[in-house]
Amino acid sequence: MLYLIGLGLGDPTDITVKGLRAVKACSRVYLEEYTSVMSGGKEALESFYGRSLVLADRDLVEQGAEQILKDAHETDVAFLVVGDPFGATTHSDLVLRAVHAGIPYKVIHNASIMNAVGCCGLQLYNFGETVSLVFWTDSWKPESFYDKICKNRKSGLHTLCLLDIKVKEQSIENMMRGKKIYEPPRFMTVCQAASQLIQIIQRRRDEGEELGLTEDTVCVGVARLGSDDQSIRTGTLRQLESCDLGAPLHSLVVTGQLHPLEVDMLRLSAEPGALGHLTMVDGSTYTS
Amino acid sequence: MLYLIGLGLGDPTDITVKGLRAVKACSRVYLEEYTSVMSGGKEALESFYGRSLVLADRDLVEQGAEQILKDAHETDVAFLVVGDPFGATTHSDLVLRAVHAGIPYKVIHNASIMNAVGCCGLQLYNFGETVSLVFWTDSWKPESFYDKICKNRKSGLHTLCLLDIKVKEQSIENMMRGKKIYEPPRFMTVCQAASQLIQIIQRRRDEGEELGLTEDTVCVGVARLGSDDQSIRTGTLRQLESCDLGAPLHSLVVTGQLHPLEVDMLRLSAEPGALGHLTMVDGSTYTS
Repeated sequence: MLYLIGLGLGDPTDITVKGLRAVKACSRVYLEEYTSVMSGGKEALESFYGRSLVLADRDLVEQGAEQILKDAHETDVAFLVVGDPFGATTHSDLVLRAVHAGIPYKVIHNASIMNAVGCCGLQLYNFGETVSLVFWTDSWKPESFYDKICKNRKSGLHTLCLLDIKVKEQSIENMMRGKKIYEPPRFMTVCQAASQLIQIIQRRRDEGEELGLTEDTVCVGVARLGSDDQSIRTGTLRQLESCDLGAPLHSLVVTGQLHPLEVDMLRLSAEPGALGHLTMVDGSTYTS
Repeated sequence: MLYLIGLGLGDPTDITVKGLRAVKACSRVYLEEYTSVMSGGKEALESFYGRSLVLADRDLVEQGAEQILKDAHETDVAFLVVGDPFGATTHSDLVLRAVHAGIPYKVIHNASIMNAVGCCGLQLYNFGETVSLVFWTDSWKPESFYDKICKNRKSGLHTLCLLDIKVKEQSIENMMRGKKIYEPPRFMTVCQAASQLIQIIQRRRDEGEELGLTEDTVCVGVARLGSDDQSIRTGTLRQLESCDLGAPLHSLVVTGQLHPLEVDMLRLSAEPGALGHLTMVDGSTYTS
């Protein structure tokens, strides 16, 4: 059996009782480590589980799946994913390989940022399409996420922005030389994400475009959700551009229309003046 | 301290280790039971935790919050929610009451249908706004969810449809007489949801409206997600109208545009002919 087990978001004790039982019973346990990270990492998990884990990097999962699935007809193998197992496409691929090899699989779910973000007080059913913000390079500055955010806002919906993670990436130079030397891991911060969005807003304003959001739009930055030291900060996009939410992982929410109860919840984490730009759409709806 | 603890979706062992530790340490433990249900219910949870739970129905949470929060300055109180604590607006209200009474709170997250639905093979970041389908009555047949589904599909996005739950509801007659007599609980099935959607499609077709989805649109019905006996069924809307996925809870997904990997995953749960109506949008995108 192949077990895909979600670890949740905070620390090793966020695994479910069902998941922990499976981890203890499996003969091999892999830890996927390139779509997300958990504070404390592999060592903290190994110490809590009392057993050693095999790190599964992108290469192993995408090219070495048969190694992971080896003998899984006769023995139980666990594949651990921070958050919920179905956050990333790669894991569908692993499931398909298992099924085609006649290996049964079982998913043990857990919280992911997609639902845990509700703790900031914004209602999950008021979210539109989730977007990803990637690190810009000198020559590659995609803006498609901006248009999706505007589209959501036009429908009154909030947008969860997942922020880029670069783990075990090679520089182009090292890749071309075939050198397996990796760059230090990088995690986009709320402040970097806000800065990229503001650059797009400024450029589009200069071009005379009608803006779907501005520097005054109310946003929520969240960091290390589910950890004891999680941080939730509500501010205008401008305010979040200069905030420091500390260690990874960060995510950013751009609000759409707000119900009064959502506004009350945001107030709990609001920077001074953050909600001063709200205007009333109707008696029970606000926007910024 | 007020703990809001998510129980996940399947059975009592889906609580996290962190959540279980909190449950065992709290002096009072409430179980919210009107926005969702867990198989086995209160008894199964009590037996697994080795302690008794207080059922928190809608009346208690909405009108008796001070009872739940009583003494929570000095003692720890837990509020258990099937899925993740922030699925329902009501719980924001409880948090706000706690904060305003000077009581600290902590959220222990878990899987909810909002992220666990990814196990059907559809990518979570390809979902648009989530909708709710309510039981129609003779005089009240809302259709707004249909328009939201069409809007999502127009953007290529899937729609998670949450299906109505009626727990501890009074008949209008008993309500008017002030009698606290409750109707038996009702849970909308995938088959009922498909039937309501098909009725709307037929009516709008008769009116000459351009249709955003049809009886041939590929949908996924899921039941008891996370349980050992979970059921995932991919079919055309017409096929799902006559399916039987067994006991609650059910949810329905209406697909938008599909990536080939999503199609491969849907194939694992597809009824015969279900994917026969897919057409290619471009080399790597399908729709129905």
